[in-house]
Amino acid sequence: MGRVSSIVSFSLTLLILFNGYTAQQWPNECQLDQLNALEPSQIIKSEGGRIEVWDHHAPQLRCSGFAFERFVIEPQGLYLPTFLNAGKLTFVVHGRGLMGRVIPGCAETFMESPVFGEGQGQGQSQGFRDMHQKVEHLRCGDTIATPPGMAQWFYNNGNEPLILVAAADLANNNNQLDRNLRPFLIAGNNPQGQEWLQGRKQQKQNNIFNGFAPEILAQAFKINVETAQQLQSQQDNRGNIVKVKGPFGVIRPPLRRGEGGQQPQEKTNGLEETLCTMRCTENLDDPSDADVYKPSLGYISTLNSYNLPILRLLRLSALRGSIRKNAMVLPQWNVNANAALYVTNGKAHIQMVNDNGERVFDQEISSGQLLVVPQGFSVMKHATGEQFEWIEFKTNENAQINTLAGRTSVMRGLPLEVVTNGYQISPEEARRVKFSTIETTLTHSSPMSYGRPRA
Amino acid sequence: MGRVSSIVSFSLTLLILFNGYTAQQWPNECQLDQLNALEPSQIIKSEGGRIEVWDHHAPQLRCSGFAFERFVIEPQGLYLPTFLNAGKLTFVVHGRGLMGRVIPGCAETFMESPVFGEGQGQGQSQGFRDMHQKVEHLRCGDTIATPPGMAQWFYNNGNEPLILVAAADLANNNNQLDRNLRPFLIAGNNPQGQEWLQGRKQQKQNNIFNGFAPEILAQAFKINVETAQQLQSQQDNRGNIVKVKGPFGVIRPPLRRGEGGQQPQEKTNGLEETLCTMRCTENLDDPSDADVYKPSLGYISTLNSYNLPILRLLRLSALRGSIRKNAMVLPQWNVNANAALYVTNGKAHIQMVNDNGERVFDQEISSGQLLVVPQGFSVMKHATGEQFEWIEFKTNENAQINTLAGRTSVMRGLPLEVVTNGYQISPEEARRVKFSTIETTLTHSSPMSYGRPRA
Amino acid sequence: MGRVSSIVSFSLTLLILFNGYTAQQWPNECQLDQLNALEPSQIIKSEGGRIEVWDHHAPQLRCSGFAFERFVIEPQGLYLPTFLNAGKLTFVVHGRGLMGRVIPGCAETFMESPVFGEGQGQGQSQGFRDMHQKVEHLRCGDTIATPPGMAQWFYNNGNEPLILVAAADLANNNNQLDRNLRPFLIAGNNPQGQEWLQGRKQQKQNNIFNGFAPEILAQAFKINVETAQQLQSQQDNRGNIVKVKGPFGVIRPPLRRGEGGQQPQEKTNGLEETLCTMRCTENLDDPSDADVYKPSLGYISTLNSYNLPILRLLRLSALRGSIRKNAMVLPQWNVNANAALYVTNGKAHIQMVNDNGERVFDQEISSGQLLVVPQGFSVMKHATGEQFEWIEFKTNENAQINTLAGRTSVMRGLPLEVVTNGYQISPEEARRVKFSTIETTLTHSSPMSYGRPRA
Repeated sequence: MGRVSSIVSFSLTLLILFNGYTAQQWPNECQLDQLNALEPSQIIKSEGGRIEVWDHHAPQLRCSGFAFERFVIEPQGLYLPTFLNAGKLTFVVHGRGLMGRVIPGCAETFMESPVFGEGQGQGQSQGFRDMHQKVEHLRCGDTIATPPGMAQWFYNNGNEPLILVAAADLANNNNQLDRNLRPFLIAGNNPQGQEWLQGRKQQKQNNIFNGFAPEILAQAFKINVETAQQLQSQQDNRGNIVKVKGPFGVIRPPLRRGEGGQQPQEKTNGLEETLCTMRCTENLDDPSDADVYKPSLGYISTLNSYNLPILRLLRLSALRGSIRKNAMVLPQWNVNANAALYVTNGKAHIQMVNDNGERVFDQEISSGQLLVVPQGFSVMKHATGEQFEWIEFKTNENAQINTLAGRTSVMRGLPLEVVTNGYQISPEEARRVKFSTIETTLTHSSPMSYGRPRA
Repeated sequence: MGRVSSIVSFSLTLLILFNGYTAQQWPNECQLDQLNALEPSQIIKSEGGRIEVWDHHAPQLRCSGFAFERFVIEPQGLYLPTFLNAGKLTFVVHGRGLMGRVIPGCAETFMESPVFGEGQGQGQSQGFRDMHQKVEHLRCGDTIATPPGMAQWFYNNGNEPLILVAAADLANNNNQLDRNLRPFLIAGNNPQGQEWLQGRKQQKQNNIFNGFAPEILAQAFKINVETAQQLQSQQDNRGNIVKVKGPFGVIRPPLRRGEGGQQPQEKTNGLEETLCTMRCTENLDDPSDADVYKPSLGYISTLNSYNLPILRLLRLSALRGSIRKNAMVLPQWNVNANAALYVTNGKAHIQMVNDNGERVFDQEISSGQLLVVPQGFSVMKHATGEQFEWIEFKTNENAQINTLAGRTSVMRGLPLEVVTNGYQISPEEARRVKFSTIETTLTHSSPMSYGRPRA
Repeated sequence: MGRVSSIVSFSLTLLILFNGYTAQQWPNECQLDQLNALEPSQIIKSEGGRIEVWDHHAPQLRCSGFAFERFVIEPQGLYLPTFLNAGKLTFVVHGRGLMGRVIPGCAETFMESPVFGEGQGQGQSQGFRDMHQKVEHLRCGDTIATPPGMAQWFYNNGNEPLILVAAADLANNNNQLDRNLRPFLIAGNNPQGQEWLQGRKQQKQNNIFNGFAPEILAQAFKINVETAQQLQSQQDNRGNIVKVKGPFGVIRPPLRRGEGGQQPQEKTNGLEETLCTMRCTENLDDPSDADVYKPSLGYISTLNSYNLPILRLLRLSALRGSIRKNAMVLPQWNVNANAALYVTNGKAHIQMVNDNGERVFDQEISSGQLLVVPQGFSVMKHATGEQFEWIEFKTNENAQINTLAGRTSVMRGLPLEVVTNGYQISPEEARRVKFSTIETTLTHSSPMSYGRPRA
């Protein structure tokens, strides 16, 4: 009966655990004593590329509210139209391509010239070959805002892989479902299924036509049942990124300045005319638009609802940084947002500090890695490779930062007496603390050791 | 001792279950692999009618954030003033009546002519019989927006039951409490109590006067303690809908066009003058206001913050549909909202598809049933009865839809090459898919079978 | 084996409990059948004062979303710069002092006259002694709005303790972390640690410099490593409120009307010029600004986004009340907000009623106690001491109330027929109920008994 009493105590432990949880009541998702550079947890392979998915149940991503994905689309690869239950920002890391989104209720404004001359009739499919909604050229640095429920496709018309990273905010009210990222496929499928949906058996993910009876699709589209079945793609194992055979002749405006050149960027005055023509793309890789620029150190550009008004709807913003070796981004914190920092090139040493004054991250982070920076956590970046480049997505349409050191820092704004009394230092030292660093954001730092390792 | 070890394994199972839950951390409320047409789970009977309550803890309603109720008020029935912790939309399904709301701080603008001629004094109760806030006539199709905390009453002055359905959004920040619907009764009571409050013993629900000491009420109202006790309605078992004895002589404007006729609808230009005169009611049953109209098929009307500005505050909108037999609402999804669809008349076959491409609903739904349509889930409606009529409440002040087929559909917006490559069909087939259906929303469909049953 | 079967049933009970919880899925935080006057649960002592922290995991505070703190700063005490993960309102209960906030990116507008005459150079620390951001005088009744992530300090330059109470809203989206209050210390530390962070071992809380390597700080600030180590305050055990030695010579404008006098309050027209000059402070203790005023009874003042526009950002508002003995605040409920009521002086008897019509609070509450008033709960206040004064913080930038009795009450807005039928009283009684009390908010009440004790 000794075992019986051990069961009793075991059950009691259970009960305590259980009560502990009910006492807690809401998840302490941001109780982060250690952060990690995150790598994708699932790779979904397709005929024309692959989608790498970060586990949004990982504590750091859960705290930030972000779901994160990387798309690698091979040349001639077509990422089939898909929509999400959340707003997202996509950044073009590498390559070039075409992108189209279908905005509900808007007209097909891209139309071929009539072939036979009589093509005014909208419903007559003979007067012209095709008409469709806007198609945009993509190049490195383009940042694309996509509202929830809006179908989007990408096509790689270059010679190198088109690499995109995308952050969707599951925590703001654009997502009206639970906190899972749910891609709805208009075409294609995902034979592997999604790993990230807990409580659902991992199974093949089909496109949405698959769920309707072919007879209904036939009536809805006024097509025959065979074509309707074809829409369901049941025999199709190419996945969600397919390889295009032959030319990809979508209607699109010419690139203005040659192949790799700069795209004609429509800069508007913030007064978008209608929802249908609202600008959704902005390039962040042009140093001439930089918000912070020091030739010897690098530049930082930001994208918020002032320069891309649709971000007000999505409640997201972005920051692009590119700094040279030994440049340092002065320690700073996010005032009103969480951030997801993705390294697009090079490497840097990063230190991050939580609300308890503990160093929760102290590592080199390199190309392809993701790091979450929660609201209020202070972070210092020091480029250790030749060129360190990153993109940061933030959960606020006008994310603000505050720096610890530098000309616009919190220390500069404090009276000398607060500094001398707070740190028990002399007025001379306090003046050095306040005034020595005249840069705002970027400074030069010599190679250094990073102090003691964390306990 | 064999039983003992089975207990051990049983307890271990418990532990695993428990850990599974803690690992999950937030509820996967929208992991919906099967949806059902929902019926009320509790009926609260009163002297003058009944309230039918849907269980808002059912997974589908929980996912949508909605709490849903149906009010059946008999002739001469008076639904006593009540307010909620959430914003709500109410739709008049049947009958006619009167409705009043009390807006905090606004003046009593409905006033009887003085009886004795000297009645200018506001506080003198002798110069006039009564004055009170606005009273409105209700008729079928009226949709009423009610902010949280605002007391509202209904009176059936017709000869048939007055039937209302109401959806309250527990998930937006008009509700600052937890996700339970909490009616606060100004008068009356509910002897049965509420089934839907978990963790609270089901008990008689009293009006709010009941919780104050009668002495306090007497001092607050400057009445005697006996009247104060009467306000508490402790001996009253009539419930929350009472039967009015004799005439119900509230001050109200005349109906302009006779009994069953059309009510003078104040159409404003969206610039409401003050909060006190803000328009809160709009009729959705007038085909002349329809947004989509095909004489042979039916019509669809929508109500959003553009035509009823108070919806911006409530973050809700509504859609009313009425279609004939064999009309089909083309497959579509909600872009930025969840919806609760209530059938007011007739029946229809509905298919719904989730993010995994699975058919999660495939049934006939008929008058009195409720169906939740989560954000992104595609849905097709096909009227199987003579006339299918429904009201949809949506969790966004400007809910948008996107259609799969038709003239404004996602397929029309996609380039032909995306369609041919995505579904491996010929350009001719793709053109048929894109251009054959020239309707936007409603189309005719012949009677049909609905394909294989779901696995 | 009798014990074994009892274990089985015990485990089954566990299972039921567990299932009960999973069925529940989200916390029923506002299932409040009894409320209490709350006292601080942790006192954090410092050299120059103390911080008293209410446990924000207590069900009532959890329901309201508020975290609540009281700061007692001794003369010459300096509360070192700290920022939070949430927006907060602070009220000056007692004493006088100075306050500074550092707004990210804004200029140092408070500057000493140059000592040597050549001090135009911004980065040269020799031409002037100091420059810093705005410093404000504080006096009793000042209410200060602080956005998340903005560092703030307080200094007591008076002869009595400076007492502040602060409410931070963890539930609105200014807080993008989980629902814990997280103070980030710019200077100082907290040797005791925070009790309120569950799941984290209670440990010394350091300032954020402590988490960076001293070498990094030296490079960022361009100071030597010894000064950098000094910024980390590791040997410092003075806590977060320190005692200033010698004069505290920050630059500040003179007090206009002498020592204890009235501060020149900048009243703007609501059009703040820039974020940098946005007004963040308003005094609520000036009866000449009162919203409700009866010389014999007292006054009530409110602060919302109309008179302090920054509250639109914070989604908070405040109400200040001061009433004489036997004055009664008529029963009322919060329409669209939760409230946290803190007594600054005197005592009152308070009755509160929940949605079930139950009296959930029926006690005398006195100076220093905190009471949560959830949305929709009706509350009556009756001053039992000489002068009852309180401050209420509300979770809505334009919190509205509705009264049960009085000239602008819900009863006045209801037609007489609704009142007679609802409470089964005569038209004469109903008229008395509607019209006898001509006050809107405050009335006189004689000393009274408070009815039967709650069951």
